[in-house]
Amino acid sequence: MHSHAHAVAPVDRSLDTALRRKIDNKTKPLGALGRLEDLALQIGRVRGSLTPTLHQPHIVVFAGDHGAAKAGISAFPQEVTWQMVENFLAGGAAINVFARANGIALTVVDAGVAHDFGPRHNLVDAKVGAGGTAPAGSPANLGTASYLGGAAMTVQQRGTALARGAEIVARLAAEGCEVIGFGEMGIGNTASAALITHCLTDAPLADCVGRGTGLDDAGLARKQALLQQALAAWPERNADPLAVLARYGGFEIAMMTGAMLAAARQRMLVLVDGFICGAAALTAARIAPAFLDYAVFCHASAEAGHRTQLAALDVAPLMSLDLRLGEGTGAALAWPLVRAACAFLNEMASFESAGVSEKH
Amino acid sequence: MHSHAHAVAPVDRSLDTALRRKIDNKTKPLGALGRLEDLALQIGRVRGSLTPTLHQPHIVVFAGDHGAAKAGISAFPQEVTWQMVENFLAGGAAINVFARANGIALTVVDAGVAHDFGPRHNLVDAKVGAGGTAPAGSPANLGTASYLGGAAMTVQQRGTALARGAEIVARLAAEGCEVIGFGEMGIGNTASAALITHCLTDAPLADCVGRGTGLDDAGLARKQALLQQALAAWPERNADPLAVLARYGGFEIAMMTGAMLAAARQRMLVLVDGFICGAAALTAARIAPAFLDYAVFCHASAEAGHRTQLAALDVAPLMSLDLRLGEGTGAALAWPLVRAACAFLNEMASFESAGVSEKH
Repeated sequence: MHSHAHAVAPVDRSLDTALRRKIDNKTKPLGALGRLEDLALQIGRVRGSLTPTLHQPHIVVFAGDHGAAKAGISAFPQEVTWQMVENFLAGGAAINVFARANGIALTVVDAGVAHDFGPRHNLVDAKVGAGGTAPAGSPANLGTASYLGGAAMTVQQRGTALARGAEIVARLAAEGCEVIGFGEMGIGNTASAALITHCLTDAPLADCVGRGTGLDDAGLARKQALLQQALAAWPERNADPLAVLARYGGFEIAMMTGAMLAAARQRMLVLVDGFICGAAALTAARIAPAFLDYAVFCHASAEAGHRTQLAALDVAPLMSLDLRLGEGTGAALAWPLVRAACAFLNEMASFESAGVSEKH
Repeated sequence: MHSHAHAVAPVDRSLDTALRRKIDNKTKPLGALGRLEDLALQIGRVRGSLTPTLHQPHIVVFAGDHGAAKAGISAFPQEVTWQMVENFLAGGAAINVFARANGIALTVVDAGVAHDFGPRHNLVDAKVGAGGTAPAGSPANLGTASYLGGAAMTVQQRGTALARGAEIVARLAAEGCEVIGFGEMGIGNTASAALITHCLTDAPLADCVGRGTGLDDAGLARKQALLQQALAAWPERNADPLAVLARYGGFEIAMMTGAMLAAARQRMLVLVDGFICGAAALTAARIAPAFLDYAVFCHASAEAGHRTQLAALDVAPLMSLDLRLGEGTGAALAWPLVRAACAFLNEMASFESAGVSEKH
């Protein structure tokens, strides 16, 4: 993949004056809708319109397994990845509930789960294949290789993952989707996200690592030691986002990165969930800084490293609900706020149209 | 009104163990839904059920005028109160947009606006009447009297306002409403709310007063001086919530207080908006502390005194979006989070039902 393939154009700011005037003339004190006013401006910029739409909201959940998960970096066994995919397909997970409650379509993608699901009508098979140094074609190992012993994925696999993420988004855009959120599932992926965050922000590793799905103190210490080992195993470490992605990424994180960049190219508004999605967003922003113009950071995760990402990107999340579930749940929960911001811009009366007196 | 008329029974905690077990067995790491888990527990307690419903969400907006508004405590002229009521009735205000976007029914109540609306099919006429020392029956003055010269309302008017608020809620409960949010409109009512907050929390006046709809520094200084004058004009000041309500309240704040207490008695979940609703909630909590069991504090307002209220009540709001509009907008925006909490409790699979492995 050449970097120009990932180029993202900045949003069009030519409407800013008109958008701000429209927002300020709504029947409310100046600035009284706070963060929703910033959101309305962003939506107008992203969609390039004074009357923007955000039709067909969609969340895509990418699932992938991590070779390193077998080394004991998670509180849950690796099989939970495929079991949770089955839960998504059956409609019983948190993301299913929140997407239904908020009128969001949901697509589940197998980016590289170490499990054979067979043909399933509601699962997109985008498996990247056996990772890194793992024996190719082994059905029991279609996740990444362990970054404790080498790169998690090959350069070719990284390219495949990025491209498949972009293809999925292009298909949704062609069907009319204008706002997209991303979620993920992958036992061990907070460890992967922690390594990516550390490499791309240069923050101390301790500020990038958290308890994931619920490690106790001993488990957290073990995770930190394993991640130190993973860093030591890559002496030529650098901050090139594509290199870091191949070394430590999960297939779901790489595919999400490609999907995010493609969504921005399609002028979709991108809803970024928590820590794992944040690692993909951080990678996307390092590849193409203008990606951030299109991104809404939906919530501040309770996972420790998320704060580090948000600070490095200099962005403020919409909500802070102590969520640490992933799956895109924070994006699904934030969608009504985004929709409300778009609605007030389009539907609220102005002082003039409503015949309301202005400030003294 | 005797205080037993306002009694509120605490929520039933007998289901707590079963509710917590149900929440903990959902297919997610323990505690991973953060604030939504606390909300789910509260909803189960309020509704007294392991499978609670929150049918027919409704927001009631109470509008009222303040005698003191003519003394220059607001950035907007008093006529904006009735003009905004017309905007509500026409569907063009922020609360209309957000209620529509989130599937919430809306009722607008004239609690005592200094304007004759005539008979209107979608406005509840609950006018309390000419306030305090104002000439009775004057159609141009059906707001409160100015607290700069005496009590804003008589004891009888306070009773009428509390009772009418309760009646409106009882009617909605009879129609099947199980969750209710409140909003308000009244030029000058941040001043009224500031005085109530000061009297009921004993926090310094400066920590209770803000810029309202947008006062500049000089306007804020003038507002503070007028409120000092209002305090000096009531030397027998005390912290009896009913006395404070009559002295400084708006009719909309008093009616909202009666409505909130009635909603708790009806075992409805109560969505509390920002600073003005917060003054009513503070008053309700001082009258009947168990009211807080039923209340969800939806957002942290940008209006300075709101922090003081939240701290005095020891409650943490769900969102912080720098809103300072009122009308119940924060309650309308928070409803999808509340609905999502109820939905996950009812709809998410358990580890057992989904066949997902538990923690190591």
